[in-house]
Amino acid sequence: LFNDHIDQFRAEFLELHPYDQARIFEGLDKEVRMQIYTYLSPEEVADVMEHIDYDEIEPFFTEMDPTFAAQVFAEMSTDDAVDILNELDKDKVASFLTIMDDDAADEIKDLLHYEEKTAGSIMTTEFVVVKAGMTIKEAMVHLRTEAPDAETIYYTYVINEDKRLVGVISLRDLIISEEEWLISDVMNERVVSVSVGEDQEEVARMVRDYDFLALPVVDFQDHLLGIITVDDIMDVMEEEASDDYSKLAAVSDVDSPDDNAFASAKKRLPWLVILLFLGSLTASLIGRFEDTLDQVAILAIFIPLIAGMAGNTGTQALAVAVRGIATGEIEKQGKWKMMMREAGTGIITGLSCGVLITLIVYIWHENFFLGVLVGLSIFMTLVVATLAGSLVPLLMHRLKIDPAVASGPFITTVNDLISILIYFGLATAFMNLLI
Amino acid sequence: LFNDHIDQFRAEFLELHPYDQARIFEGLDKEVRMQIYTYLSPEEVADVMEHIDYDEIEPFFTEMDPTFAAQVFAEMSTDDAVDILNELDKDKVASFLTIMDDDAADEIKDLLHYEEKTAGSIMTTEFVVVKAGMTIKEAMVHLRTEAPDAETIYYTYVINEDKRLVGVISLRDLIISEEEWLISDVMNERVVSVSVGEDQEEVARMVRDYDFLALPVVDFQDHLLGIITVDDIMDVMEEEASDDYSKLAAVSDVDSPDDNAFASAKKRLPWLVILLFLGSLTASLIGRFEDTLDQVAILAIFIPLIAGMAGNTGTQALAVAVRGIATGEIEKQGKWKMMMREAGTGIITGLSCGVLITLIVYIWHENFFLGVLVGLSIFMTLVVATLAGSLVPLLMHRLKIDPAVASGPFITTVNDLISILIYFGLATAFMNLLI
Repeated sequence: LFNDHIDQFRAEFLELHPYDQARIFEGLDKEVRMQIYTYLSPEEVADVMEHIDYDEIEPFFTEMDPTFAAQVFAEMSTDDAVDILNELDKDKVASFLTIMDDDAADEIKDLLHYEEKTAGSIMTTEFVVVKAGMTIKEAMVHLRTEAPDAETIYYTYVINEDKRLVGVISLRDLIISEEEWLISDVMNERVVSVSVGEDQEEVARMVRDYDFLALPVVDFQDHLLGIITVDDIMDVMEEEASDDYSKLAAVSDVDSPDDNAFASAKKRLPWLVILLFLGSLTASLIGRFEDTLDQVAILAIFIPLIAGMAGNTGTQALAVAVRGIATGEIEKQGKWKMMMREAGTGIITGLSCGVLITLIVYIWHENFFLGVLVGLSIFMTLVVATLAGSLVPLLMHRLKIDPAVASGPFITTVNDLISILIYFGLATAFMNLLI
Repeated sequence: LFNDHIDQFRAEFLELHPYDQARIFEGLDKEVRMQIYTYLSPEEVADVMEHIDYDEIEPFFTEMDPTFAAQVFAEMSTDDAVDILNELDKDKVASFLTIMDDDAADEIKDLLHYEEKTAGSIMTTEFVVVKAGMTIKEAMVHLRTEAPDAETIYYTYVINEDKRLVGVISLRDLIISEEEWLISDVMNERVVSVSVGEDQEEVARMVRDYDFLALPVVDFQDHLLGIITVDDIMDVMEEEASDDYSKLAAVSDVDSPDDNAFASAKKRLPWLVILLFLGSLTASLIGRFEDTLDQVAILAIFIPLIAGMAGNTGTQALAVAVRGIATGEIEKQGKWKMMMREAGTGIITGLSCGVLITLIVYIWHENFFLGVLVGLSIFMTLVVATLAGSLVPLLMHRLKIDPAVASGPFITTVNDLISILIYFGLATAFMNLLI
């Protein structure tokens, strides 16, 4: 399209927002992309790369000239560069870092050390810092020179002689202050910071609760290491939400639209195989009640209903408990209070559904005892399954396992087992009333 | 604690971030709260109220003196005031608006008209606007006077003589420009805006993709009506994520830690009753195969296994489809491609699980035909249930129903039905091989 019209291409392409540039770039053929690398500067390509999904970016860096690719990495925000490098081969990363100039390489190397999903792994080192003793005027001059490279200039962090974080001042406060005032007089000393090892979900919660545009990251001696900006927090929120959602549905990742059937099956099959074995347990459990079944074959009719209701109520209780743990509400309320509430909920829903199904079965089969048996089973099942649905995530949390791992299908299958035991247990005990 | 020491209380309390003030305030007794209303100005109370959950705020405004409450509303960001007023009685709202001074009341009345979950309902009218013909210096003077009331001053929107939105300029660009330059020369003319009726989820997606700190909201003639800031977007993201999660688990809202057992049962019972009736359908379906069951009672053993697997795979497919619709990926890819992929996924997972269970049943019961029957049922069930799991949300989307309403438990119960039909259908057809 733009063959040999470099200027025209640059004028039209660069006027777009980098997000839109990235969407266009992704849709191009390799040949055209190779041409674009020669049309644009490493800095301009870096802007495009920052708006491409990390898991789809590898081929682009592989097809670039390695020296050019290293320059692109050097021009990116360090946090984005690190996120992308984390997706590449260790060997490739090492070779890029060797080509890169030393300062950029060092900054990236520092960040590569932080564990995934911590504050350190999502922070950037391009922040603006001033000394407490500067005047507003000096600070503004400093800010103007730093502006082109900084991730945000809307918060400026203030350090003392020991390089410890002592305050923060917003650009809003800077521009309404008099030029000769001192930073130390106008800065906010109650600066909220996070430690470098903090969980990214906790960081996201703080940014959201306090309505910050950025949050400073410090080491245990309060030295300022980096900042986390709100745009990165939105990505974290999206990632964590999609993660919780995927786990509830027992898929390893729901957000991968480009998968083919094989990749997609690979994400679901491990769960299904585990659930298949759990299901076989249920089958062998019913097998133990074969005598009961032989005598009253009609019992089989209600198996899926009872198992299904156990699964449904368990999934509900599970979801409430997982969210309660994630938001910290359960910690605050106390686990006992929560279990008592779930028991109450189970009794109320169990009573309602139990009475309802007793009536349905009685009217339908004209067998009062069968109705009572099914109703009583539903009641007991709902109480136990509700408790199980909330107890399992609580136990996992206690054992330091992510409670979201207890997915809906998992709790459903466990509750299938419990419900079958209750149903056939009751049926066997009251057999004489049924025949 | 601070009895009669107004100054001391004010000094210590007001130094805290409003989020922390709100946490303390919530924990106090009514008596103490009543005292605080007299210690603080309406503006200071407004800051606290902006950081309290909308569904827990009503008692505070009810216990305040109505005139004071109206002043508090007038001092709040219009978007927060509107969100809270939406939670109150219509009568109370009307009485507050009558007491309030006219300007504030008019702004709030305008916003109250917008439909929930649209751009209009989350925008604020406290934005800064300059004319294209101003110089940078004039714009900065204007900005400084507007700064105290504006929701953000980091983006300034530019309008022409017809009051239409023609550009945007960031504070970053303003402070690095020369004072005598014209706004029209430095502003970005490619301003991205949303229409006032746009869905809030779409607005959130744009802010996240483009890394904006604020987004202008316009009417169909490009008149600037308000802005949406990133802190509100984070609340929207949280709300939407929790909403999707709740629906997948079939609870009306997972995020209400303060509920008692009754409130909690009320959120789950409607779903459970619907699912109970669907489950009764399954039971009556098995009832139709009573003859088959009487002849081969062992068939009953595998009912929960097969129904369970159908539910599990359906939930997985559902979650992938719901997310794909929400992110717009399925629209982009085409529905056919997605259905083909799901069919492929169903065949692969169905084959794997089918062969596995055939072996398990064969080894366990030493009955080859029974093994093949269960294996074949699992295979067919998984293919059909996977397709159902993705087809149901697609159909709902087509019918303009929120696809997330098709919860995990719902699709599980529907797939129970399908799987029973397949299993007993096959068993009845090949009865002679089983006896």
